[in-house]
Amino acid sequence: MKSYREELWFHTQTRREYINITSQVQRVLEQSGIQEGLVLVNAMHITASVYINDDESGLLNDYERFLERLAPHADDYQHNRTGEDNGDAHIKRQIMGREVVVAITNGALDFGPWEQIFYAEFDGGRRKRVLVKVIGE
Amino acid sequence: MKSYREELWFHTQTRREYINITSQVQRVLEQSGIQEGLVLVNAMHITASVYINDDESGLLNDYERFLERLAPHADDYQHNRTGEDNGDAHIKRQIMGREVVVAITNGALDFGPWEQIFYAEFDGGRRKRVLVKVIGE
Amino acid sequence: MKSYREELWFHTQTRREYINITSQVQRVLEQSGIQEGLVLVNAMHITASVYINDDESGLLNDYERFLERLAPHADDYQHNRTGEDNGDAHIKRQIMGREVVVAITNGALDFGPWEQIFYAEFDGGRRKRVLVKVIGE
Repeated sequence: MKSYREELWFHTQTRREYINITSQVQRVLEQSGIQEGLVLVNAMHITASVYINDDESGLLNDYERFLERLAPHADDYQHNRTGEDNGDAHIKRQIMGREVVVAITNGALDFGPWEQIFYAEFDGGRRKRVLVKVIGE
Repeated sequence: MKSYREELWFHTQTRREYINITSQVQRVLEQSGIQEGLVLVNAMHITASVYINDDESGLLNDYERFLERLAPHADDYQHNRTGEDNGDAHIKRQIMGREVVVAITNGALDFGPWEQIFYAEFDGGRRKRVLVKVIGE
Repeated sequence: MKSYREELWFHTQTRREYINITSQVQRVLEQSGIQEGLVLVNAMHITASVYINDDESGLLNDYERFLERLAPHADDYQHNRTGEDNGDAHIKRQIMGREVVVAITNGALDFGPWEQIFYAEFDGGRRKRVLVKVIGE
């Protein structure tokens, strides 16, 4: 069994942002040389998500509106009494998820026609990381 | 390390449907011959989910009611301005998740007493796929 | 490829509880002797979650309030007509997720600075299990 790991770094200018990272994950996969196995892609921070869905700007606005409706930034969170202002981001990340696991077949991401990997930032404006871990042969 | 992959195809008659696919995943696992490892089961489309929970008809109705309350089909989604009518399905799928990873022990799904794998269709009426990828030894 | 499995048992006194299990998973990882690979940690019951986020008491209260708002215990669930009273717990678990997959690098959980693994119980007061499955080399 072979394994390979790389970190992807992000520094968004805005508090919330949705970034398509599919090509970056593909590049890591090529670097790994692994042909059959699994790749784990996860946010290393707890106010961000990695998820798979469509790269369509209207949909990204729908996600934004949905998440802000369920857990508004302006709401009163006990977590914010620690001096933070990101209680909403800890909830948004749980809804969208921490990680994806993708099959590797013939050296490629084994995807359906519209699957794209996204990094969703819910508390940006600083440097944060995504882990890509590949295992297989 | 061995690996094995198979696709399961579904064509629901209704827009939304919840299908127990546990026995189909077990059959793929047997085909793989893998005794110890992991199996990834994921929707290959972005308006459907694979999740694990109980096979109880009342609960499936509760999920349906909950998801339709959170992201109603009839709501106004920016994604639908592309000509689609499935903005709700892209949100419902995020709540229920894309994939499950299940441990394989002694050639079987390593499950608690009530765990069942479901394919949840949120935009049906056409042929769609689930990927089963097995890795291990 | 090596593999290793262990079950963690919990018996909460209250209906809902959030338990940091990071050190228990680390101990299983050490037992496994695996240096590079993946560890799957999943609830074996369908009214509980395993998730990764911050160990901060205010945040745990925020999660509790959020989940109880989205799927109140006192609400009317069709599932409860079976004689159960845990319809809410089956929904709460879907929001928070069943499992996490964590990378293993140099024999340790490959974590960002604040990542902690939690067992979230939504229907406690009895013995329930979490599965830890490690694969790698």
